Amino acid sequence: MDKLLELFENKDWRGLKAALADENEVDTALFLDEIEPENVPLVFRLIGKDMAAEVFANLSPELQEIIIRSASDAELASILEELAVDDAVDMVGELPANVVTRVLKNASPETRTLINRFLNYPENSVGSIMTAEAMELRTGMNVGEAIAYIRKNGEDSETIYTAYVIDSKRVLLGTVSAKELILSPDDAEVDKLMEDDPISITVDEDRETAVKTMMKYDLLSMPVTDGEGRLVGLVTIDDAMEVMEDETTEDFRKMAGIAPNEKPYLKTGVFTIAKDRFLWLLILMVSSLITCAILETYEAAFAALPILVTFIPMLTDTGGNAGSQSATLIIRGMAIGEIEPRDIFRILLKEFTVALICGFVLCVVNFLRMLVQYPGQTAVGITVSLSLMATVIVAKLVGAALPVAAKVIKVDPALMASPVISTIVDALSLVIFFGFAEAFFGI
Amino acid sequence: MDKLLELFENKDWRGLKAALADENEVDTALFLDEIEPENVPLVFRLIGKDMAAEVFANLSPELQEIIIRSASDAELASILEELAVDDAVDMVGELPANVVTRVLKNASPETRTLINRFLNYPENSVGSIMTAEAMELRTGMNVGEAIAYIRKNGEDSETIYTAYVIDSKRVLLGTVSAKELILSPDDAEVDKLMEDDPISITVDEDRETAVKTMMKYDLLSMPVTDGEGRLVGLVTIDDAMEVMEDETTEDFRKMAGIAPNEKPYLKTGVFTIAKDRFLWLLILMVSSLITCAILETYEAAFAALPILVTFIPMLTDTGGNAGSQSATLIIRGMAIGEIEPRDIFRILLKEFTVALICGFVLCVVNFLRMLVQYPGQTAVGITVSLSLMATVIVAKLVGAALPVAAKVIKVDPALMASPVISTIVDALSLVIFFGFAEAFFGI
Repeated sequence: MDKLLELFENKDWRGLKAALADENEVDTALFLDEIEPENVPLVFRLIGKDMAAEVFANLSPELQEIIIRSASDAELASILEELAVDDAVDMVGELPANVVTRVLKNASPETRTLINRFLNYPENSVGSIMTAEAMELRTGMNVGEAIAYIRKNGEDSETIYTAYVIDSKRVLLGTVSAKELILSPDDAEVDKLMEDDPISITVDEDRETAVKTMMKYDLLSMPVTDGEGRLVGLVTIDDAMEVMEDETTEDFRKMAGIAPNEKPYLKTGVFTIAKDRFLWLLILMVSSLITCAILETYEAAFAALPILVTFIPMLTDTGGNAGSQSATLIIRGMAIGEIEPRDIFRILLKEFTVALICGFVLCVVNFLRMLVQYPGQTAVGITVSLSLMATVIVAKLVGAALPVAAKVIKVDPALMASPVISTIVDALSLVIFFGFAEAFFGI
Repeated sequence: MDKLLELFENKDWRGLKAALADENEVDTALFLDEIEPENVPLVFRLIGKDMAAEVFANLSPELQEIIIRSASDAELASILEELAVDDAVDMVGELPANVVTRVLKNASPETRTLINRFLNYPENSVGSIMTAEAMELRTGMNVGEAIAYIRKNGEDSETIYTAYVIDSKRVLLGTVSAKELILSPDDAEVDKLMEDDPISITVDEDRETAVKTMMKYDLLSMPVTDGEGRLVGLVTIDDAMEVMEDETTEDFRKMAGIAPNEKPYLKTGVFTIAKDRFLWLLILMVSSLITCAILETYEAAFAALPILVTFIPMLTDTGGNAGSQSATLIIRGMAIGEIEPRDIFRILLKEFTVALICGFVLCVVNFLRMLVQYPGQTAVGITVSLSLMATVIVAKLVGAALPVAAKVIKVDPALMASPVISTIVDALSLVIFFGFAEAFFGI
């Protein structure tokens, strides 16, 4: 990287061209990201034709647009034909309309049709992450013919490690791995070798389902079919890993009360960041008015015994933490398919027992330290400690139940995380606390 | 699955054997998990020899142990030789010592040496997730020889899609993909075709580094070398995806204050769950004594103006939420490599501006609703609203700074998440609130 930057600073174009030829495509894209945008088109032309499309696919949408705007029609057409369809679609999805028109005008009719078809798949569907270039074998071939066919036609396929056997109507009959082909004698029949009834997915299912299925069965790629079982493309593992990373980031955001946004943090403007965060801050602030209202009804209680007030944050925080722990485990467990809504009774029993153990020990610890810290105020110690235990139990049950309930009514469980749980548990813990206080002190 | 269970209930062993032969290995493992453990060895013997090792690798440690205990020495040896070394090592790591002794006694000397070597790699190192069966080509071969060699020796390799070219001292010289070999003429030289200086990793690096590198460069597998550059194994993408999922789960747990534990929730005992959660609950409860102490110093203030107390949960919650939002984005950004500690000043500036925007709007909204709800108490409204804005600003700065600071001093940033941030922000928001109250009301 430093070497590339040095060659660039010295305007040693010949040296830079030679160095770029040895560089990995991903690193070249990172290098282009480091230099001033206005110099990108110049440097991009130094990249060998065999690597240019791959480098282009790894660039940010902003740099892609700059290159397209400066490219001649011929250059644009050449980049487009080399790009994998899924990368081309991703790019078109980010470009302004007038640039899109020019891109589509310079694409070959086949590419244009493919791009248009892909653009119609709904966001987050399997279609939105699949690639069109599958290695297709016709039923009836033998291994020698299949290998020869792959050697002749494999160049454009996204992956040749799995070939898909189709009939004359393009219906998917089976899959055969390159490993099996290579390890079998030339005269073996592909139809006998292939796995019938392979694991596949239809084009309009959720992209997360595709990732989960691929992980479950350790697949490097998975065929995608339309409603009639015809092969339309494949999902490859590198795209699946990206989906997995994106979905996880989305879960982290949701669980912290932030709207989904796939743009990297450092490249997002402050107004967008503020907008993404504001809604939940407002909702939660307004919700905590309930807590205000509850506290107002107990104003007499803490006017009479102001020391009670000092324990409020400890109680509500411990409750919030206890509830968030449960919610996090349940949300994550459901996200990776370890937990199903039908497990709800086992979960609640488990959480109740865990809460009993944690709550009891916290209760004892707290009671002992209050005995030392507030001698002669045993009643206050008992009130606070019992409230603590009850809060932990209620918090853990609420934290476990809400995500499951959300899943049942088809709301994203990730929304029932720390912020929402804390707000609800706050209100409940205050009712518990002042309920005990009233019972003990008659206030 | 239902069909398998039905055949099993009817004790139709012949039918079950036939059905299992058509089943995917992962699904067969799931089926074995459904039936009573004491019947597992019986059913396991019905599985074809070509699938048995793969099914075995997908079983839980408990079922693996049951099968091993019931297997004859010859059966055990046959399973062991078919298992990939990484799966064998995972298994041995979970078995009780006396069973391990029997397993190692029945392994071939080569397998035993390999297992012992793998067991010595530290947890979370690349060595702990790598597999030994790499497709190795000697330098000097041509494509025809290479393909013939792979066809002859590929059966045992974990993946034949990338072959590794080594010299006589096993030093890694380059990699060549099966795609390139298949698409090249037979007489081409592998040494000219191969990628020199391939992306690789050493065996004692962190397994997360391996996953990140593979994701960055879209690799299906990556060679692993020792300190002298000699090939010792490879990491494959399916293992990398599992590491990614495990590491993400660990991050979710840490961010909710739960100790790491890779066992699925439903299969973990309540005492283990309680133990995993208790430490942080206790630490946070004890930390919130600081908040108690702060509140005690202001007892006079809220005895004089009890209405102030009712706003405490709203203030501390909003602060906690605002801080957690920032912390979550920064922690996740650092986990996926988008954010580095050197970005700290850009981050703080960004967070300050975002906090200013969010805080200001929340401040205005809150002031207006307090005007309506508490007419004639404008001073209280101003105090609460200004405290709210100041809290949001402080919370976002703390939430962004702490994870970065943790990373710098080599503490896991994921620990600086919601629970810790909330506890710190609680204390700060109360100081802000009663500071403003004292200034406004002179109490």
